[in-house]
Amino acid sequence: MNYSEKISLSKETIEGEHSLDDFWSWYNARLAYNRFQITEIPLSNVGNWNYNDTEISHASGKFFKVCGIEVKTDFYGERNWYQPIISQPEIGILGFIVREIKGVLHFLVQAKMEPGNVNILQISPSVQATKSNYTRVHGGNSTPFVEYFLFKNDHSVIYDQLQSEQGSRFLKKRNRNMILDLTDADFPNSIPDDFFWLTLGQLKNLLSVDNIINMDSRTVLSGLPNYTIGNLSYSKTVYSESLAAEDENSFRTLPYLFSWIANLKATYGIETNFTPLIAMKGWVKSEERIYNENNSSFDVIGVRIEASNREVKTWSQPILRSNHTLLNGIVIQEIGGIPHLLFQAVFEPGNFDGVEFAPTVQGSILEFCTDSNNPNLKYSAYFKESFLEKEVLYDSIQSEEGGRFYHDQNRYSIVHLAENTISEIPNNYIWLTLNQVKRLILINNIFNVESRSLLSCMI
Amino acid sequence: MNYSEKISLSKETIEGEHSLDDFWSWYNARLAYNRFQITEIPLSNVGNWNYNDTEISHASGKFFKVCGIEVKTDFYGERNWYQPIISQPEIGILGFIVREIKGVLHFLVQAKMEPGNVNILQISPSVQATKSNYTRVHGGNSTPFVEYFLFKNDHSVIYDQLQSEQGSRFLKKRNRNMILDLTDADFPNSIPDDFFWLTLGQLKNLLSVDNIINMDSRTVLSGLPNYTIGNLSYSKTVYSESLAAEDENSFRTLPYLFSWIANLKATYGIETNFTPLIAMKGWVKSEERIYNENNSSFDVIGVRIEASNREVKTWSQPILRSNHTLLNGIVIQEIGGIPHLLFQAVFEPGNFDGVEFAPTVQGSILEFCTDSNNPNLKYSAYFKESFLEKEVLYDSIQSEEGGRFYHDQNRYSIVHLAENTISEIPNNYIWLTLNQVKRLILINNIFNVESRSLLSCMI
Repeated sequence: MNYSEKISLSKETIEGEHSLDDFWSWYNARLAYNRFQITEIPLSNVGNWNYNDTEISHASGKFFKVCGIEVKTDFYGERNWYQPIISQPEIGILGFIVREIKGVLHFLVQAKMEPGNVNILQISPSVQATKSNYTRVHGGNSTPFVEYFLFKNDHSVIYDQLQSEQGSRFLKKRNRNMILDLTDADFPNSIPDDFFWLTLGQLKNLLSVDNIINMDSRTVLSGLPNYTIGNLSYSKTVYSESLAAEDENSFRTLPYLFSWIANLKATYGIETNFTPLIAMKGWVKSEERIYNENNSSFDVIGVRIEASNREVKTWSQPILRSNHTLLNGIVIQEIGGIPHLLFQAVFEPGNFDGVEFAPTVQGSILEFCTDSNNPNLKYSAYFKESFLEKEVLYDSIQSEEGGRFYHDQNRYSIVHLAENTISEIPNNYIWLTLNQVKRLILINNIFNVESRSLLSCMI
Repeated sequence: MNYSEKISLSKETIEGEHSLDDFWSWYNARLAYNRFQITEIPLSNVGNWNYNDTEISHASGKFFKVCGIEVKTDFYGERNWYQPIISQPEIGILGFIVREIKGVLHFLVQAKMEPGNVNILQISPSVQATKSNYTRVHGGNSTPFVEYFLFKNDHSVIYDQLQSEQGSRFLKKRNRNMILDLTDADFPNSIPDDFFWLTLGQLKNLLSVDNIINMDSRTVLSGLPNYTIGNLSYSKTVYSESLAAEDENSFRTLPYLFSWIANLKATYGIETNFTPLIAMKGWVKSEERIYNENNSSFDVIGVRIEASNREVKTWSQPILRSNHTLLNGIVIQEIGGIPHLLFQAVFEPGNFDGVEFAPTVQGSILEFCTDSNNPNLKYSAYFKESFLEKEVLYDSIQSEEGGRFYHDQNRYSIVHLAENTISEIPNNYIWLTLNQVKRLILINNIFNVESRSLLSCMI
């Protein structure tokens, strides 16, 4: 079997090494075993962190910083704004280990506590490691299984690419999104209590539940080489057609897509310059928190964590608290009988190379677009209507990364529209087939994390 | 016919709209008609340019700057050095217009004078335009044909991607490498005297002549969707096999290649920090020029140009004068009967995303590697031997970009080795099939300009 076939088999397997009931028993046991107390505290009381007029940083200089930036862009006309942003300029590893168990690929998942999770524990990839973790800068306990992800020639790579985190909140942050097949590798027979084996069919099932599969898992799964929406109302057949569609059946050819991106990068730009936190116009820096005068987007607050299953039992840290649940949604519509997904190109301040593809609607794009002349406001309102009453292929609430974002839940939705429902699109929108998505996601920094989250729901 | 077939036909056509004899008559006529006087002058006498202890910049703030940088890298062990580098942070257009003439695709070329060219006039793409040119910042004469390259949906795009210039001499410089088919567009019947139509077969022929096809043409041509080395001694058939080779016949799979690149980017880094020209250790800044104490690599000098066919008739400018002719060469060897090309991953200070693929041997990598413990010195000497006596598929002297580099000629060579001649390669080297090259060159910043120059010889 090639990987495409192996992945299809895993996707069709709902009863794997364990049943989904087993999964929930394990999940609830982990939740009961690991007790955590999360308390919001004033930023000025976050131990070991310096909170001054310029930035928020750890006393050791490690982990991450919260800085102020001034942003200027000429996309959608000249605009500029100020905002806090997270700076953590190193490449972390987000990695799934997969192994064949009784002939079916299983994914090794971990029940992971993050302080920002609304439900404390969510399902993470086998390994989530910062560069400090995997090079052991901390000197703490090492991350289980991380050694398999330090490059050796002898593991079978299913996916490995540098991809972005939220460009609206992270400055040029990228992680290695990795899926390794360790079927033929030396591997322990028993795994620690916080780990569990799931088939892709089971993961797919859990992706339809709110707030269980964490953001890091979702972004990695989006790199799998085939998509379907088989267990949803939209027919399998139509999806297979989109996947098999050759370039000549796509609305746009692949050279056209590359040209379209190159043109945006050559024509527009977004520039970010550091500015002291205290100098960010429109923002208030108090002892308690940093917040926007219009209550838009997010605050920066402190949290204190008392935990039992981390190398460090108690700590406090700064975190971005979200003020709104936003919609991230993709519209799918047939063009010439072939399903096409509608993406928009967006310039976000933290993007590595200016522009990335975002979903048809992405709430956070509007965070700083309060200018009523902004055409994006109009387009977004227009496309948002599509999500009200059409054929819904996917709809759930999912969390953003709980290590940096506090109670940050967004609605993720995929809807199907009949041919010609949308006939004209703005210049920064583009239609892609699933086959084109599959090719482009092999490349770094084409799809942003919000669109990868949605693509993971099509595994 | 699809583009692959159209390109093959153009490649087989040696007698096009004009013969090669016509071409040489035209070229010599242009050379005779356009008289240029190029004189080396002291840097401190370059009119309209400020030459101070910090940098060299134009009085208008436009064009480019020459800055000093300190470079630190942990690739090949911890190393650091100082050097001048060109800063020109905008995306230019290098574009070929192609049109079918009597059923065969012809490329529109231009005879273009650049002050650094050893032979003054070389063949450039239809359009070479900086962003200032194509947005008319200068207010000078507009660049002929540039309007076709400003993105419209109605031209057929054959290739359009952002690609790098020399990472050892340019700071994150990228250009749009474009090939547009304007067969169906409104196009003037007669073209200006400095322009000429050539088939791909004719361009291929001219690529075997020294210093005729300029660097900008070569980098754009490398983006063509099919390669061959048909008119060389190496058999057509073997190349076709390499091109058709599916991933399972390649020495490395495509996911492996992406993983290999991601691992290098995550593991190593190269950091550049601006430093005043006067503070560059190992360099001397005099009234005349900036030069390295060891006479390595390049000097920065001034040139004065008196020309007749430019919008500005006389000007002077700083330019990098090369001190050595270097070898840039690719080794080709069969693995499992399929030809594979040997590339090395290199961290050059000006690279956009840390690492790019360079040819098997690239002379400029060694410019600042005078430490005899540097393993790259040993490897390069080893691979250089391959170019001495083996089956030579391509060998010529070609110029680097004459607008920034003075008399900078390098030897470009491709050699064929029998299976198993090279059995072990260093960790930063990788074997690729032509089919993999073809896929990866669609992506930005994978191949550096030296390797793209060599790939253009395989059109």
